[in-house]
Amino acid sequence: MPKYVYDFTEGNRDLKDLLGGKGANLAEMTGLGLPVPPGFTITTEACRHYLTEGGLPDGLSGEIDTHLAALERAMGKRLGAPDDPLLVSVRSGAKYSMPGMMETVLNIGLNDESVHGLAKQAGDERFAWDSYRRLIQMFGKTVLDIDGDLFEDALAAAKRDKGVPDDLDLSAADFQRLVETYKGIVREHTGEDFPADPRRQMRLAVQAVFSSWNAPRAVVYRRQERIPADLGTAVNIVAMVFGNLGMDSGTGVAFTRDPGSGRQGVYGDYLQNAQGEDVVAGIRNTVPLQDLERIDPACYRELLGIMETLENHYRDLCDIEFTIERGKLWMLQTRVGKRTAAAAFCIAVQLVDQGLIDLDEAVRRVTGEQLAQLMFPRFDTGADRRLITKGMNASPGAAVGKAVFTPARAKELADRGEDVILVRRETTPDDLVGMIAARGVLTSRGGKTSHAAVVARGMGKTCVCGAEELDVDAAGGRFTAPGGLVIEDGDVISIDGGTGEVYQGEVPVVDSPVVEYFETGRDGGEELVGAVDRLMRHADTGRRLAVRANADNAEDAARARRFGAQGIGLCRTEHMFLGDRRRLVEDLILAGSAGEREAALEALRPLQRSDFAAIFAEMDGLPVTIRLIDPPLHEFLPDLTALSVQVALAGDEASPRDRRLLEAVRRLHEQNPMLGLRGVRLGLVIPGLFEMQVRAIAEAAAERRAAGGDPRAEIMIPLVSAVQELEGVRDEARRILAEVGVAALVGTMIEVPRAALTAGQIAEAAEFFSFGTNDLTQMTWGFSRDDVEAAFFSRYLELGIFGVSPFETIDADGVGRLMTIAVAEGRRARPDIKLGICGEHGGDPESVRFCHRIGLDYVSCSPFRVPVARLEAGRAALAGGDSDTR
Amino acid sequence: MPKYVYDFTEGNRDLKDLLGGKGANLAEMTGLGLPVPPGFTITTEACRHYLTEGGLPDGLSGEIDTHLAALERAMGKRLGAPDDPLLVSVRSGAKYSMPGMMETVLNIGLNDESVHGLAKQAGDERFAWDSYRRLIQMFGKTVLDIDGDLFEDALAAAKRDKGVPDDLDLSAADFQRLVETYKGIVREHTGEDFPADPRRQMRLAVQAVFSSWNAPRAVVYRRQERIPADLGTAVNIVAMVFGNLGMDSGTGVAFTRDPGSGRQGVYGDYLQNAQGEDVVAGIRNTVPLQDLERIDPACYRELLGIMETLENHYRDLCDIEFTIERGKLWMLQTRVGKRTAAAAFCIAVQLVDQGLIDLDEAVRRVTGEQLAQLMFPRFDTGADRRLITKGMNASPGAAVGKAVFTPARAKELADRGEDVILVRRETTPDDLVGMIAARGVLTSRGGKTSHAAVVARGMGKTCVCGAEELDVDAAGGRFTAPGGLVIEDGDVISIDGGTGEVYQGEVPVVDSPVVEYFETGRDGGEELVGAVDRLMRHADTGRRLAVRANADNAEDAARARRFGAQGIGLCRTEHMFLGDRRRLVEDLILAGSAGEREAALEALRPLQRSDFAAIFAEMDGLPVTIRLIDPPLHEFLPDLTALSVQVALAGDEASPRDRRLLEAVRRLHEQNPMLGLRGVRLGLVIPGLFEMQVRAIAEAAAERRAAGGDPRAEIMIPLVSAVQELEGVRDEARRILAEVGVAALVGTMIEVPRAALTAGQIAEAAEFFSFGTNDLTQMTWGFSRDDVEAAFFSRYLELGIFGVSPFETIDADGVGRLMTIAVAEGRRARPDIKLGICGEHGGDPESVRFCHRIGLDYVSCSPFRVPVARLEAGRAALAGGDSDTR
Repeated sequence: MPKYVYDFTEGNRDLKDLLGGKGANLAEMTGLGLPVPPGFTITTEACRHYLTEGGLPDGLSGEIDTHLAALERAMGKRLGAPDDPLLVSVRSGAKYSMPGMMETVLNIGLNDESVHGLAKQAGDERFAWDSYRRLIQMFGKTVLDIDGDLFEDALAAAKRDKGVPDDLDLSAADFQRLVETYKGIVREHTGEDFPADPRRQMRLAVQAVFSSWNAPRAVVYRRQERIPADLGTAVNIVAMVFGNLGMDSGTGVAFTRDPGSGRQGVYGDYLQNAQGEDVVAGIRNTVPLQDLERIDPACYRELLGIMETLENHYRDLCDIEFTIERGKLWMLQTRVGKRTAAAAFCIAVQLVDQGLIDLDEAVRRVTGEQLAQLMFPRFDTGADRRLITKGMNASPGAAVGKAVFTPARAKELADRGEDVILVRRETTPDDLVGMIAARGVLTSRGGKTSHAAVVARGMGKTCVCGAEELDVDAAGGRFTAPGGLVIEDGDVISIDGGTGEVYQGEVPVVDSPVVEYFETGRDGGEELVGAVDRLMRHADTGRRLAVRANADNAEDAARARRFGAQGIGLCRTEHMFLGDRRRLVEDLILAGSAGEREAALEALRPLQRSDFAAIFAEMDGLPVTIRLIDPPLHEFLPDLTALSVQVALAGDEASPRDRRLLEAVRRLHEQNPMLGLRGVRLGLVIPGLFEMQVRAIAEAAAERRAAGGDPRAEIMIPLVSAVQELEGVRDEARRILAEVGVAALVGTMIEVPRAALTAGQIAEAAEFFSFGTNDLTQMTWGFSRDDVEAAFFSRYLELGIFGVSPFETIDADGVGRLMTIAVAEGRRARPDIKLGICGEHGGDPESVRFCHRIGLDYVSCSPFRVPVARLEAGRAALAGGDSDTR
Repeated sequence: MPKYVYDFTEGNRDLKDLLGGKGANLAEMTGLGLPVPPGFTITTEACRHYLTEGGLPDGLSGEIDTHLAALERAMGKRLGAPDDPLLVSVRSGAKYSMPGMMETVLNIGLNDESVHGLAKQAGDERFAWDSYRRLIQMFGKTVLDIDGDLFEDALAAAKRDKGVPDDLDLSAADFQRLVETYKGIVREHTGEDFPADPRRQMRLAVQAVFSSWNAPRAVVYRRQERIPADLGTAVNIVAMVFGNLGMDSGTGVAFTRDPGSGRQGVYGDYLQNAQGEDVVAGIRNTVPLQDLERIDPACYRELLGIMETLENHYRDLCDIEFTIERGKLWMLQTRVGKRTAAAAFCIAVQLVDQGLIDLDEAVRRVTGEQLAQLMFPRFDTGADRRLITKGMNASPGAAVGKAVFTPARAKELADRGEDVILVRRETTPDDLVGMIAARGVLTSRGGKTSHAAVVARGMGKTCVCGAEELDVDAAGGRFTAPGGLVIEDGDVISIDGGTGEVYQGEVPVVDSPVVEYFETGRDGGEELVGAVDRLMRHADTGRRLAVRANADNAEDAARARRFGAQGIGLCRTEHMFLGDRRRLVEDLILAGSAGEREAALEALRPLQRSDFAAIFAEMDGLPVTIRLIDPPLHEFLPDLTALSVQVALAGDEASPRDRRLLEAVRRLHEQNPMLGLRGVRLGLVIPGLFEMQVRAIAEAAAERRAAGGDPRAEIMIPLVSAVQELEGVRDEARRILAEVGVAALVGTMIEVPRAALTAGQIAEAAEFFSFGTNDLTQMTWGFSRDDVEAAFFSRYLELGIFGVSPFETIDADGVGRLMTIAVAEGRRARPDIKLGICGEHGGDPESVRFCHRIGLDYVSCSPFRVPVARLEAGRAALAGGDSDTR
C-alpha cells in the first residue's frame, strides 16, 4: 500500500508531484530548520484515488490518525480539546500554483466547547468567537457548498445593527451571536447541524479540497494554463498560528527581490493584527514590509535572514507568506516567485554573477515567450497616461486608435486610413471584418479563450478582453468606464495587450530596447539588454538546432540576418507575383497558346532573377530555401462573386478583358482551393512555370557567384504527396541547374499527411525536407484555418477540446506523430537528409523544443521570432536540469 | 552466383516469376511429354540485372554456351552451321502477358553461308531466302532500332517491280535480292554490316528483348494494367520449327473451350504454309480449326488429345499456339486463356462439375470486376445493330443519346430533358459541364487514362475513348466514320462502355439477368445465372467480412437487402433535408433566437423520425448505422455567386427573404467548405441539432420495437479529429437514448488523418469505427476530389504518378497505412470494437481484399455493389491458392 501521508520533516522540495508545491516547500523549509508550524501533507496520490474511485483510499484514515497524534504530541495539545485545543488549517496545494482556484479551511477544531478553550488559551474571548465564526463561514462555503454571500450578508447585518463600519468594532458577544446565526444558515441549507466533531470537520475539509480539483473554475484555469487535468492536489494539515492575536501579531507577504525589475532589496507588505485572508480580501490597507523594522525589529531581522537563506537555497527569487503570533515569526509558505519578463532576464544574470547558478541554468530560467514580450513595442512608461481600466492580456502589443463599436464602422474608418480599436461586448464570427480592419480589439466579456482572444492571437493583433468594468453600448456607440467616464465613437484610446491596460487618449509607443539591440548589436548599457545579450550568446553556443528565417525579399532577409538567422528556410515566390506583376500573371493565365504562355513566362523571368539575386546578396554564404510557386492561380485573379456582380451590373458595357477574366476565374474556380490545383500540381500541369522559376534561381546564383559572392540556393517543391510527383520536377531542375552551371539542393515540403506517411519513398528523391506545419495541421485535422478559427476555435477551447490552438503549438499526438514518422523514415532512406520546419510553429517556443526533441536540423520562422527560436533552441539543448518554468 | 539459364526440361509452371509465363509453360508442357521444340529460358533475374546494372551478368554467357551446346546435341545441328544449321527463335516472355508489347526475333543463325544449308536441309531455296530476309527485317527493326517501314517499303517495291500482289508470288531470286537490299538498309542506318556471326545475333537479340521491357509502349501498358515495373522479362531460346515449308505445314491458335461462353468444343484458327507472324499480320485468311481434320487428320487428333491433356492438367481453359512442320505437330505456347466475364463464371462452375477444381478454387477464378460487368444494363444482342467503330472500353455501361459536340450544347439539350452523348476529339476540364449533362462520352483520342476516361469513371458515366477511326469536327458539329458515314449533331448513337463499341441509332438496352436474379432470387434456368448463384453462395459461406450497404432511404435499404446486404453501414441524414424540407433548414439557419431555432428543429424531428422508422422496418434485425448531419449548412442555401448576382440585378426590388438569405450565405461562406464547419463541429456549435437527430432515431427505434420489430440503430458521429470532440456528443446521445429507453451503439467515422493517428484515444469513446475513405483520401493526399479529378488526374495517370486513382482503389501506402494504424490501436484500446468502411472503396474489389487483410469486420458500399463486395470478400477469405486472375 502506498504511503499517503508525509510529515513536514519527511518531505522535500523535489517531491512536488506527490506533495504539491506548498507541501514540498513547507517540508523543505522544515528541513532547513526554519520556523514552520508543524504539520503533515496528504499526497496527490490520495487525491487521485479519491477522484477516480469516488472515496478516500483504505488506510488513509489510519495514517492521518498516526500523524495527527504525532502533531498533537509535538504541540502538546489535542485537536479540538475543550480546554486547550489544537487547531489546524486544511490547505490545498497542487504541483502547479493555481492562485485562488483551490480551497482552504482555517481553524478546524473549534466547536461550542473548544471555543472557550481557545479564548482561555489566547486570553481573548473576542478572538476566539471571531475564529469560530470564520471557521463556520469558510467551512459552510467551501465544504458544505453554501452561498458565501449568506454569511457575508449576516456579517454586514451585524455591523449595520450595531452601526459600525468595521469587523474590528464587533465584540465577542457580537461574534457569538453571529456564530448562532451562521449555524442557523448551515442547518437551513444542509438540513443538518454544523459538525462539532473536530475529526469529522477535518475529514470533510480534506474531501472538499480533493473535490475542489474538479470545480469548474479550476478546470477552466488548468485548461488556460495548460496544466494536466489528472494531477490532483495534495492537502496540508498545519497547526494554526494566529496573526490576529493583537498588535504584536500580524501577517505579511514578501519577495526576496523585486519581481518587477529583479533588483535586490526588501519588497513586501505587512498587516498587523490580521490573518492572511484579511490581506487577500483587501479590507484593510497593508504597510510596506520595511515598516516591520519599526514594529518588530527582531522579527524583521529574522525574516531578512530567512529570506537570504531561502534565496541562496533556492537559488532564485522566492515569494513568502509569514505570520507573527505575539512576536514569534512563522513561515507559512514559500515558492519560487513569479516575475515580469524583464525581471526574469535580469534575475537570471544576477544569480549567475552571485555565483548561485551557472549560465546553462540561467538560460533555462528564461523563456521565449518572455523574450517575445520584451520585443513588442510598448507604451512609453514615462508618458502621461490616464488608465481607464484593466482587462485580460489576451494578445500582446500596444495599439492606439479611435474607438469604434461595430465591424462596419471599423472597416469604414480603416478604409479611410484611420487607426481604429474595435470595442465590443464580445465578438462573434460576424465581427471578423472589423477585427481585420482594426489595430486592436477590446472586449468587456470573455477570457483568454474567448472568440476575440483566439482570433486576435491568430491574427497577431493586439487584444484586451474581459474588461468587465466597462459597460459597452454598441447601439449607442459608446462605453462607460468606472467613475462615469464615457468614451464615444471616434474618441482615441490605447490598449496594452501585454498588461491588459486600457488608456484614454493616445499613449506614445516606443520601440523595445531589446529589438534595438538585435538590430544594432549595441546594448546601450541597460541592464535588461545586457542580460538578454549574455543569455542569447550562451543559448547560441549551446543549441543544436539552427535557426533560419522566413523571408520573401531582401529587406526581410537583411533584418533576419541581423536578428541572428542562419539562412532562409522559406522564401515564398508567390508574393513576388503581386503588385505591378499581377498583370503578367493574368497574361500567363489568359494565354491562349503555347507562344503566349511562353511570352508571359519570359516576361516574369528577369523580374524573378533580380528578386533572387537581391536575396542571395543579403544572405551571402548562408542557405536560402526558395519554394516554387504554391498557391492556386486564381489567387492572382479577382474574386469570383465580386467580378460576377460587376460584370452582371455592367451588362453590355462590361469590358472584353473583364469578360475574359471572368471566364478564367470561373474556369479556375475551385470548391476547396486549399485542396486544389496548387504547389507541385501546378508545376506538373502548366508547362514551363517551374522551369522559369528554377532558371531564374540558377541565373541569379550564377550572377552572384560571378560577382564573387557565395550563393547557396535550395530549391523546394511544395505540396508533394507522392515521390512520383517530385521525381520529374527534380530531374528537370537538375537539368536546368547543370545547364546554367550552378549547384543547388532540391528538396520538398512535407505538408501533406501522405508525404509524411511515405517519407521513406520521398527521401529517395529529396535532399531535404521542410515541414510545412500550417498546411500539415490543416490537413491532419481536416480544418481550414481561415474558416474555422473564427467559427469554432473559441468554442473548442471552452469545451477543452484544445488546450491550445494547434496552429499556435504543434499538436504532438497528431501532426507531431506524422513528423516523427517522417523524420525516422526519411533519415533511414537518406542518412544525410537535411530536416527543417518552416511553418509558423518554427517560432513557437514549445514547438521549437518539440523540433529539437524529434531531431530536426533547423527551424525557420518570421524574422521577428528568430531570437525567440534561438533562445528556445538553446533551452531545449540545455534542458535536463529543472527547466520547468511554469 | 544465381542460375540464370533453365533448360525446358528443368522448369515448370510454378516458376513464372523467374521464367516468365511463356518459359514456365513451355517447361511444363515439356515435362508433360508434349512435343515442344527443345530450348531454354534466360531468367527474369538476368533481365533485372541487365536493366539495373546496364550489362549482362557475369557467367551468363558461359551458361548460355552450355545450354546451347546441349540444344545442338539434342538437335544434331550447330547454330548457324553452313551445311545444316540449327536456327533458333529468341522470344520474350514476362510473368504477365503483355500482348504485342515485347519483342521476338525468329530465324537466328542465318547468314550468307547458312542460308544455303537451310535451303538444302528444307529442299526449298525460296523458303531459305525468305527466312533470311525475315531475320534481317525483324532483327533490323527490333534489335537495331531501324524504322520497320523501310523494310516493308522495300518488300512492297519488290512486288511492285514484279507486278505481283502477294509475297507468295516472289521467287527465291527475288528474296535473295531483297536480302541484299535489306543488308544495305542496315548498313546505311547503323554504319555497320548486318552481323553474320550467329552467336552475336543471339546475344544482341537477348539484349534487345531485355531492353524492350522499358520501351515506352511497354511502360504505358504496364501502368494501365497495373503490372509492377520492376519484374523484367525472361527470354526463351527455342529451336525453330517451320510452318511455312509447304502445304503439309502450317500454324494455328486454339482454345480448349469457347472463351466467349465457356462452352466445350473445338475453337481456333489454322493457316496452311505460314508462320505465326503471318496469322498476326492478317495477310491471309485463316480457316476454322475444324478444317484441320480434313487437311491433316493425324495432327488434328493429336492436337485434340493434347488440348484435353492441357485442360485437365491446368484445370482451366487454355489457349495454345502450334505449328505443323511437314506433318509433325509442335506446341509453341500455352497459357490459361483470357475469357469474357460471363465465360469466367460458367467455366469455373463447369470445371467444378467435371471434378477438376473445387468450389473454393472456382470462387477464386472469378472477380468482382467481372461480376460488376455482368450487372450493367447492356445492349440487346438480339437487336439489329449497326456498328460504326470500336474504341476503348473506358467506363462501363450502355448509353444512348443524341450526339452533341460541345459542352454547351450538351447542357442545353440535357436541360430540355433529352439524352445526349458528348462526342469530342478529347476532353479537357472545360468539358466538365457537358460531361455532367451527358449520358455518355465518346472521344476519338486518348487511352484509358485520358481525361475523358478518368473523369467519366469518377462520375460512373459510360465512356468509350480513343475511337481513332472517327474524325471529329466539333466546330462543324459532326463526326465522320470509316466508310464515309457522317453523324451530325442531334443524330442518335449508342455506345457500349463495356466493349468499346459505337453504334448508329438507338440500340435497345436490356437489364442484366444477373441483376434480375439478385432482385428476385430466381435464376430462370440460364447457365450464367446458375453459375453466379452457386459461386455467390459459396463466397458467402467462406467470407469473414460482412457486407453492408450505404442507403439513405427505405427503398435503397430494401434493394440492398435483396442484394444480400447484412445491414446499413452508412445512412446519410443530410439527404433527408433536401426537397420540400429545404425551407425548414433555411428557417433553422436564419433563426434569430433560441426559440426560433428550437421551433425549426422541432419541425424537422417528426420528419426525421418517420425517415428512420421506414429504414428500420426494411432492415429489421440488422444493424443500421446512421450518420448525424455532416455537410456545412451553406450546402442547403443558394450559391453565393448566383444569389449575389440575382440580388444585385434585382436592386431595390430584391425580396427581404432573399436579402436575409444572402446575408446568411455570406456569413456561412467558407473558403474551403470541406475543411470547414461541418460534421461533429456543427453538432458542437449549433445547440440542439444533434440532439434532435438522436432523439428522432431513438423515437423511431422505440416505435418499431413497440410494433414488435427488432431495430438495431448505430449512431455515427462524422468528422471527428480528437476524442474530446466525441466525448460530449456521445454522453448527450447516451442520455437521450436512456430517456427514450432504447439501446444503440455510438461510434465515429475515421475520416480525418488525425482520427486515425489518435485512434487509440478515440476508441476509448467510440464503440465502432467506420472508415470514411473518401474524405480520408482527400485529406491524406491534400486534394479535393471535385477540384482535382478533372483538373489533373489524367495528367497524373499519364505521368505514372498514380497507377490508379486513389478514389477508385485504396492507396495502401498512405491512406491504407493510416487505416492499419487505426485498426491496431483501436483494437488495442477496445478489443471488441466494431470496424468497418463506408467510403466508396467499400465496393471496389481490390479495396475489399485490402479491408479483409487489415482485419475489418465489414465493408459497406452502394446497394448495386453489394454482390461485388460479397464475392470479393469470399475470394479474399478463400485466397491461398493461385488466386491471381490477371
